[in-house]
Amino acid sequence: MKRTSLAGAACPIARTLDVIGEWWTLLIVRDAMVGARRFDDFRRSGIADNILATRLKRLVEQGVFERRLYQEHPERYEYVLTEKGRDLALVVVAVATWGLKWSPGTNLNRMRHTECGHPVKVTGWCEECGRALTSDEVHMVHLDEAAATLAAG
Amino acid sequence: MKRTSLAGAACPIARTLDVIGEWWTLLIVRDAMVGARRFDDFRRSGIADNILATRLKRLVEQGVFERRLYQEHPERYEYVLTEKGRDLALVVVAVATWGLKWSPGTNLNRMRHTECGHPVKVTGWCEECGRALTSDEVHMVHLDEAAATLAAG
Repeated sequence: MKRTSLAGAACPIARTLDVIGEWWTLLIVRDAMVGARRFDDFRRSGIADNILATRLKRLVEQGVFERRLYQEHPERYEYVLTEKGRDLALVVVAVATWGLKWSPGTNLNRMRHTECGHPVKVTGWCEECGRALTSDEVHMVHLDEAAATLAAG
Repeated sequence: MKRTSLAGAACPIARTLDVIGEWWTLLIVRDAMVGARRFDDFRRSGIADNILATRLKRLVEQGVFERRLYQEHPERYEYVLTEKGRDLALVVVAVATWGLKWSPGTNLNRMRHTECGHPVKVTGWCEECGRALTSDEVHMVHLDEAAATLAAG
């Protein structure tokens, strides 16, 4: 399966996906976040019909989208993000934040704080310190170390 | 290409990848974050040799990893995350945070605040309000709307 190149896309999310994987799924979620609900809406990002149909089916099975009947003759369905799906917003924003910094192209941050309308980025967050963290301040431990901490805690 | 199922993996990142796409690349970055540097280190996550080789090559071309000679006879290389690569940490944490909440399995948060050692999650961040935001407080605007805001701002 040959993948369409997204390296030159205007959207920093799309460009990031070009670098870090075959993330059609996250593009579908991104499109849903700006109002796409019907098959034809999702097709606009350039995803092939067969891939789109497969991914939507899987996302419904996974509980990321809910499938709703909107027309009876003929039967037609639309796809609405569930709470689980809406929670992918921060993954989308994380990808966008990285793409804004590291992928060449238009640097439009599309994420907004609903209350004030200003741009949103993602940041690490330490509950203990109650403050925002950069990538440099975060490290990952091995699973067994995480398990040991849990057992000790 | 048949994809290995990660649905039952202990790591919430891996489980999330099973839901939202073919993200071997992000697993490679995750492994690098816990110290993987050599081809054999990266193989441990179960990625097929040919896919791993292709992805590493691409990630070096993209500037996510730097390839360094560590042995001369025979020539052997290790792969070290660049600043661009290390900045993917917040994407990894975002995926992990979602996975901790929404994918069934072991709920071990492996991300740590280096300074205090406590777990890290990601959050949206509004520079204007100087506060952390949940997914519910964030929305995405269309590219043309973002462009208009930029022009007006």
